[in-house]
Amino acid sequence: MTKLYDTIRPVKWESDRLMLLDQRLLPEEEVWLEYLGCDEVTNAIRDMVVRGAPAIGVTAAFGVVLAASRAWARSGEHWREEAESELQRLLEARPTAINLKWAVERMRGIISSLGEGDPTPALLDEAKNIHQEDIEACHRMGELGAQWLGAKESVLTHCNAGALATGGYGTALGVVRSLAERGSLKTTFADETRPWLQGARLTAWELLEEGIPVTLIPDVAAATLLRNGEVGAVVVGSDRIAANGDVANKIGTYPLALAARAHGVPFMVVAPISTIDPDTAEGVLIPIEERGEEEVIGFGGNTWAASGVKTRNPVFDVTPASLVDVLVTERGVVESPDRVKIAELLAP
Amino acid sequence: MTKLYDTIRPVKWESDRLMLLDQRLLPEEEVWLEYLGCDEVTNAIRDMVVRGAPAIGVTAAFGVVLAASRAWARSGEHWREEAESELQRLLEARPTAINLKWAVERMRGIISSLGEGDPTPALLDEAKNIHQEDIEACHRMGELGAQWLGAKESVLTHCNAGALATGGYGTALGVVRSLAERGSLKTTFADETRPWLQGARLTAWELLEEGIPVTLIPDVAAATLLRNGEVGAVVVGSDRIAANGDVANKIGTYPLALAARAHGVPFMVVAPISTIDPDTAEGVLIPIEERGEEEVIGFGGNTWAASGVKTRNPVFDVTPASLVDVLVTERGVVESPDRVKIAELLAP
Repeated sequence: MTKLYDTIRPVKWESDRLMLLDQRLLPEEEVWLEYLGCDEVTNAIRDMVVRGAPAIGVTAAFGVVLAASRAWARSGEHWREEAESELQRLLEARPTAINLKWAVERMRGIISSLGEGDPTPALLDEAKNIHQEDIEACHRMGELGAQWLGAKESVLTHCNAGALATGGYGTALGVVRSLAERGSLKTTFADETRPWLQGARLTAWELLEEGIPVTLIPDVAAATLLRNGEVGAVVVGSDRIAANGDVANKIGTYPLALAARAHGVPFMVVAPISTIDPDTAEGVLIPIEERGEEEVIGFGGNTWAASGVKTRNPVFDVTPASLVDVLVTERGVVESPDRVKIAELLAP
Repeated sequence: MTKLYDTIRPVKWESDRLMLLDQRLLPEEEVWLEYLGCDEVTNAIRDMVVRGAPAIGVTAAFGVVLAASRAWARSGEHWREEAESELQRLLEARPTAINLKWAVERMRGIISSLGEGDPTPALLDEAKNIHQEDIEACHRMGELGAQWLGAKESVLTHCNAGALATGGYGTALGVVRSLAERGSLKTTFADETRPWLQGARLTAWELLEEGIPVTLIPDVAAATLLRNGEVGAVVVGSDRIAANGDVANKIGTYPLALAARAHGVPFMVVAPISTIDPDTAEGVLIPIEERGEEEVIGFGGNTWAASGVKTRNPVFDVTPASLVDVLVTERGVVESPDRVKIAELLAP
C-alpha cells in the first residue's frame, strides 16, 4: 500500500548491522550511526539516539538479534546465557515505554523456540517482521484516525509521535499524514516540547521534509489556541497505556488533555496494541523516568538558568482515561476507553 | 517596615537619570543601563530591558519625567506639546500591561496641575511616589497573601512576578518572600516559562540571591507536580485584570490554572490595584501581544528548531475569573473575584 508522505525511516538493518538516525543531532545534521552489539544499542536507547516507544521497540528487536548473533559467534551453543545478560540490560535502558519490553519478550519467544545452530536468521526475520508490522500498524492507525476525525483543518500535537518515533509513518503523525493525504489539513500545531524539544526539532523537521504544513508553538501557548477555537483536535502518541486506559506520554500531554477537555476539543491517542500493558492496572503504577538537570537548565550544552538552581525533570506524565476521547490502534478505534473496552480490544 | 529578603531593585533614579538592570542579560551578567530620554525608555520597555507590569509602570513614570525635563530644557514654556508625542510612543511600548497606561495617566494628572516653570521637580516627586508606593503595595500583598495561604511548605509560580517585575519585593514572589520569612516554606517550584525563560533566568536568580529555596521545572511538568500533591498553592502575578476578574498574565498561566483547579490546589493572583482595568469589561477584550519567531525557534541567538518552520508566539493568556480562587491586592484579599467584588475593591 503506497502512501504519500512516507519517506522517513529512523531505523534500518543494513549489511549485518543496525543503523540509527541520530535524533540528538536533528535537525542540524542527518547522521547515521551503526551498531554491531546489543550493549551499544542499549546505550543508544538510553542516550536517545533513538526515541519514541514504537521505534524503541523496533530498535530493541534488532538489539536482540545482535546479542544472539554475537554470542553465537563467540560461544556457539552456549549463546543463550551470554545473550541473556545483554537482554537484561537492554530491558532497563528506559523504564516508561512498554514497547521495549514487548519487543524483547516477542524476540524471546523465538529464542525459546529455536533448536541448535545459528539463531541469527530466525531472529532477524522476526525483528524485520516487528519493524514491518509497526509500519503497517501506523498506516492503518493513520487511516482510522483520519476517518474518525473527518475533514479537520487543524490539529495540535505534542512531542514527536512521527515516523521518527516508530518504524516509520508515525502514530499521531500518521494520522496527520493521512489527514494531509485527504487534503483537508491546513495546519499542524506542534508543541515545541520542552525540555528535549522533540516538537521543535523532530516534528517540525519531519513535517517540513514531507511538505505538510506545520506551525511551531511554545508548549504554554497550546491552551490559548484551544480556547481561540484554532485547533480541531489534539492528537498524541503514547509510551504506555494501562489496562484501564490511562495514558503515559511525554510530559506535557496531561495539561494538554485538560485544556482540550475544557474547550470540548477531541483528544485522540494513537498507539499500536504493543503500547497497551495489560499488566499495569492503572496509570499511577506506570514508572515515570526522571532525567538529568542538564535538560532543564538549558539545551544542547547552552545553559541559561541561574547557576546552582535545583531542578526536577520527570519526562512523562499520565493522562487519565477519562480525558481520552478516542484511542486509535491498528485493531480499531475505541471511544472513551476504559478497562472493559481495553480488555475487549486485547482479546484474541 | 524592614523585610527579610528585600535586596533587589530593578529600577533606580540616580544623578538625574533612570537606571535599569538589564533583564535580558540576567543571570549571566548584572549590567545597569542609564537613560536620559523618554524614547530610549520606550525602547527599553519594548525590548524587555525591564519587564513585569508593575516595573513597567514605575519605569514609565520616570520616562515621563525625562520627557518633560528634556522638553523643558529644549523648549521652555512649550514643553507640554513636545513631551506629549514622546508620551504617546511610551504608551504604545507594550500593549498588554495596563500599569503602563495607569502610570502615564497618573503622571499626566500632575502635568495638568502644573503652572509655569520647570516641571521636573514635581514630576520626579510623583514618579518616586509611584515607585515607593509600588514597593509598599508589594510588602502589603506579600503579608496578606502569606496570611491567606497559612503555613504552606511549597508553592509553584510562573514567569517572574518578583522584585525584578515590580518596584521591588514582587507580587507573587512577595508572597513567596513573606512565606519564607514566616519559616514554613521549603520549596518554590519555578516554571521555566518558555519562550523568554523568565522563570529559569529571573525567578531562579532572584530567589537564589536571597537564599529562598527554589526548584526549576519545565512548564509542562507543573501539572504532574500538582497531581502528585507536591504543590501547596499556585501563586502568580498579572499584567491586566479585567473588570469581571479575568486575569491576563504570562502565557502558560491559563493551563496552570486549569491544572490547579483539577487538583483542588488554590490558585492565587497577586497584583496591585493599578493592574485592574475597570475599562476592560472582560478578559477577551484584553489585547494580547504576539512577539517574534526568534523567541520560539531558539533562545539567545542559539537556534534549534527545524529551519523554515512557521511559528506563533502569543506572550500572554487570559485565565477566567472562575479559575481564580483568590486575588490579593494591597487593599485586601478577594476570594472568587467577580464583577461586583472587583467594583467594591475599586470603590473610593
